[in-house]
Amino acid sequence: MKIKGYTIMGIDPGSIKTGFGTIKAFSGTMEHIDNGLISPPKDMPFKERVTYIFSEVVQKIKEFNPDCIALEDIFISKNAQSALKLGHVRGAVMSAAVLNGTPLFEYSPTRVKQSITGRGRAEKHQIQEMVRILLKLREVPQEDAADALAVAITHAFTV
Amino acid sequence: MKIKGYTIMGIDPGSIKTGFGTIKAFSGTMEHIDNGLISPPKDMPFKERVTYIFSEVVQKIKEFNPDCIALEDIFISKNAQSALKLGHVRGAVMSAAVLNGTPLFEYSPTRVKQSITGRGRAEKHQIQEMVRILLKLREVPQEDAADALAVAITHAFTV
Repeated sequence: MKIKGYTIMGIDPGSIKTGFGTIKAFSGTMEHIDNGLISPPKDMPFKERVTYIFSEVVQKIKEFNPDCIALEDIFISKNAQSALKLGHVRGAVMSAAVLNGTPLFEYSPTRVKQSITGRGRAEKHQIQEMVRILLKLREVPQEDAADALAVAITHAFTV
Repeated sequence: MKIKGYTIMGIDPGSIKTGFGTIKAFSGTMEHIDNGLISPPKDMPFKERVTYIFSEVVQKIKEFNPDCIALEDIFISKNAQSALKLGHVRGAVMSAAVLNGTPLFEYSPTRVKQSITGRGRAEKHQIQEMVRILLKLREVPQEDAADALAVAITHAFTV
């Protein structure tokens, strides 16, 4: 039973590694719940990677029962082939969210950087370090998991 | 209870219109079951279009209970933004298939054209007319629905 707090699952979609990070936001404070990576086996064909990630995200949503999911929005991609791949994974993540009726929020990369570091042009390692500090973690999370936590924190700062 | 025949649902994913077409293949013959379009409301934001299509495909799979789903494979896209959008819809369709445990097959556009017309470089209207003839339809199906039926027929010719 939920007593208090608002559980946010951030997701950083990618066909090689999809980062996820779950936090609980109270009024003015937040707490780290979990973070990690969904990594399909390296030799898995692409369409199976997509459905693997869908199934894993469905499981993570069941496990943590978040009140909402936060994703980084993507406006620009240089390469059509990588955009197509990323699109598949994002579509699978959105499908997993709607399957559970979990509201989905999107934030631009600039907005996430701004929220976490106060600047829209922060470096990756600055994001990771700020995530560590904000969530009182002993170690810096892995890059994609840190990005997922960063977008979850951005949502916590917004609501 | 299924007595005989093999039900194939072809899907032509698109964020504006997603075509679907269901056929039943017996040994050497085939029968048209249904075809149509999934068209999210025009003013719907993109992420809602993706989840709308996911939910509609889940419903279509429940309704027709296909033995498999056939999709056109996409290798090339000129535009990164349209590739990203198409990717989302394809990821949602793949997620709907795996949710029901329905096997998914992909065929290249050249393979589909070759199967339907005997030539790898057929025009759209030739595909539509051949789909009409092969399935003994009185009228030519709408373009995206015809493409969906074409990929379902390609699968029927293959298995």
